Amino acid sequence: MIETDIIIIGAGPTGLFAVFEAGLLKLKCHLIDGLPQPGGQLTELYPKKPIFDIPGYPSVGASELIDNLMEQIKQFQPGFTLNEVAEQIEKLEDGTFIVTTNKGTKHHGKAVAIAGGLGSFEPRKPVLENLAFYEDKGVEYFVKNPEMFAGKKVVIAGGGDSALDWSIYLAELAAEVHLVHRRNEFRGALDSVEKVQVLKNQGKINLITPAEIVELKGADQLEAVVVEREGVKEEIVCDHFIPLFGLTPKLGPIANWGLEIEKNAIKVNNALDYQTNISGIYAIGDVNTYPGKLKLILCGFHEATLMCQSVYNTLNPGKKFVLKYTTVSGINGFDGSRKEAEKAVVKSID
Amino acid sequence: MIETDIIIIGAGPTGLFAVFEAGLLKLKCHLIDGLPQPGGQLTELYPKKPIFDIPGYPSVGASELIDNLMEQIKQFQPGFTLNEVAEQIEKLEDGTFIVTTNKGTKHHGKAVAIAGGLGSFEPRKPVLENLAFYEDKGVEYFVKNPEMFAGKKVVIAGGGDSALDWSIYLAELAAEVHLVHRRNEFRGALDSVEKVQVLKNQGKINLITPAEIVELKGADQLEAVVVEREGVKEEIVCDHFIPLFGLTPKLGPIANWGLEIEKNAIKVNNALDYQTNISGIYAIGDVNTYPGKLKLILCGFHEATLMCQSVYNTLNPGKKFVLKYTTVSGINGFDGSRKEAEKAVVKSID
Ligand SMILES: Cc1cc2nc3c(=O)[nH]c(=O)nc-3n(C[C@H](O)[C@H](O)[C@H](O)COP(=O)(O)OP(=O)(O)OC[C@H]3O[C@@H](n4cnc5c(N)ncnc54)[C@H](O)[C@@H]3O)c2cc1C
Ligand SMILES: Cc1cc2nc3c(=O)[nH]c(=O)nc-3n(C[C@H](O)[C@H](O)[C@H](O)COP(=O)(O)OP(=O)(O)OC[C@H]3O[C@@H](n4cnc5c(N)ncnc54)[C@H](O)[C@@H]3O)c2cc1C
Repeated sequence: MIETDIIIIGAGPTGLFAVFEAGLLKLKCHLIDGLPQPGGQLTELYPKKPIFDIPGYPSVGASELIDNLMEQIKQFQPGFTLNEVAEQIEKLEDGTFIVTTNKGTKHHGKAVAIAGGLGSFEPRKPVLENLAFYEDKGVEYFVKNPEMFAGKKVVIAGGGDSALDWSIYLAELAAEVHLVHRRNEFRGALDSVEKVQVLKNQGKINLITPAEIVELKGADQLEAVVVEREGVKEEIVCDHFIPLFGLTPKLGPIANWGLEIEKNAIKVNNALDYQTNISGIYAIGDVNTYPGKLKLILCGFHEATLMCQSVYNTLNPGKKFVLKYTTVSGINGFDGSRKEAEKAVVKSID
Repeated sequence: MIETDIIIIGAGPTGLFAVFEAGLLKLKCHLIDGLPQPGGQLTELYPKKPIFDIPGYPSVGASELIDNLMEQIKQFQPGFTLNEVAEQIEKLEDGTFIVTTNKGTKHHGKAVAIAGGLGSFEPRKPVLENLAFYEDKGVEYFVKNPEMFAGKKVVIAGGGDSALDWSIYLAELAAEVHLVHRRNEFRGALDSVEKVQVLKNQGKINLITPAEIVELKGADQLEAVVVEREGVKEEIVCDHFIPLFGLTPKLGPIANWGLEIEKNAIKVNNALDYQTNISGIYAIGDVNTYPGKLKLILCGFHEATLMCQSVYNTLNPGKKFVLKYTTVSGINGFDGSRKEAEKAVVKSID
């Protein structure tokens, strides 16, 4: 059992910054995320893009912002359970919580902050008969371990960066790479499009456009796909079919926790502390909704801050909270580190 | 008459960031501040200090943050009325507002955002009989125009950076500089303390510690001060007395505008849009109060953002607002500039 003060579900910018504000109040945090890395939408959907509306940053790259947040919180030593989806939440009699993931990892904490954004990311799937049957039997939506494709016959479908990048990568590793896209035009980094052109010319990628996969075949296991180009069908013998049509977030398990849901988000008390209808469970960032809510990064930062205050006040009843400026009081890390402004000297003149 | 969409009173970090969010919604802003420069508390009280709790900045200098905000908003061409205190506010029949400063400058806008922080900055004054009488007749609380002290006899009081820095500066310019402080120890940058020591040794600064000014003398005009050291009084003939005991913000004129005041701050509707009891007048940043309010920079950023949305919705009734990500839509400046993410190419492979 992982023990912490605040269990944070979702390691996007909101969840990460909550670690910092909690740390200032001497509260420890542990984050759970279904993705293999922290950063939420920023690292998963637009890591190389600039953001122009982070206060104080005329422009900042999405993954640069996440790197900075990771640096900002590191002295508060957050724990991470990555690649696991928080599936169940249980409130114990003493008011504490246990959150269990799809892999059975259990987390015990005094409060829960759901910072789940638009939900957990799921692959957009093509509409094909028996698709579910072939999942993990040849059909893959992620390339988690590229080595498993060594010497195999692989069909990739898609027209964006993921399809381009994995075709390039697997061209050297797999026995055959077929890239199927419903248009002739690809949409991605110029560099990647040009590399695929070269690999196609060298015969290392078999490009099939404009075309679509229309059927999957195989007894126990995927053995072939049927591709249709301009009305003509053709069978391609293969071991793997990797449709890369992007990821789409689904609210997922969060929807079943007895929380009030509105517009696919969790209703919170924005007049006070972003608590949900279950006391001790908060929702911050893109995952919550209230009148006037804006799904922007900077909003999650403020919500996280007020949420931490509320947790602190609940855990320390009767203790008067005194706001300390970081500039004046500095920061004491849980790792023993200390950050502080240079002190003015106090010196006599004689 | 200065015409704008939103009149912002206070050019601290909150007021500055409001310009950006308003700009995204194509609303123009004009800022009024009693100080000679933008930045509020950050530039006036701790320009050289680092701040550790701006989201995404493990550490940022206070004046660096203000520089970055000025850079971030520049394409939205904010107007500035500096060195003037907003003194009166009038709501016209058509729902628009006129804000008038102590110097008579008039501003006309569709909404007013009070981002006045802790109020306008006023000098901390020593308790001395007839002090008010000698104001502008020899007693100065700011060194606005150092040249006016050339060849004069000046008494400075205080033990912090301002007292040290102005003593150093005026030592070369004035006929005499007397520095009076109630302790032997000064509190300031090491460099400044050491320079004063050197100037004292050279006889360019007459240091009197531990001592206090106890009396002001002169018929129409300041002619001398009486300084008391360890029970002994001495008269110093002088033209100017400059007490530099720091600035302290006072809510000031804002308190008389018919707004609901609580804890020396303006009550707002934090459940919606930070509007005050007078519709069309908002209060954002340190100047407002609501349950759970924290007087932190990052809070003002979120409040400014929701406030701008509300102004937009009020000015465009019935128009459905569609949130646009800066990353996706880029930014069109009022100066014709355009900021945008590099576009993915759409290119066919043949
Ligand atoms: C293309 C694009 C451009 C954008 N541009 C901007 C912009 O310019 N400015 C701006 O402010 N915003 C922008 N946004 C929006 C911004 O990305 C979001 O507001 C922000 O990511 C919200 O942060 P968050 O931490 O609340 O949620 P997210 O970033 O969505 O992170 C939530 C995390 O929770 C995880 N999760 C969800 N449910 C579970 C579960 N049950 N178990 C485990 N993990 C779970 C997810 O895997 C995810 O990592 C943009 C978004 C996109 C898609
Ligand atoms: C020493 C110190 C350290 C701090 N450290 C931190 C920190 O680490 N982190 C943090 O988040 N915060 C910190 N703060 C607090 C932070 O500075 C404030 O939260 C922030 O300045 C509030 O911004 P604002 O724009 O709302 O108001 P302000 O910065 O106070 O700006 C308000 C402006 O309004 C002007 N004004 C007021 N009334 C009028 C009027 N009638 N007419 C014209 N102008 C007017 C004032 O002159 C002022 O420039 C610190 C404060 C101090 C003093």
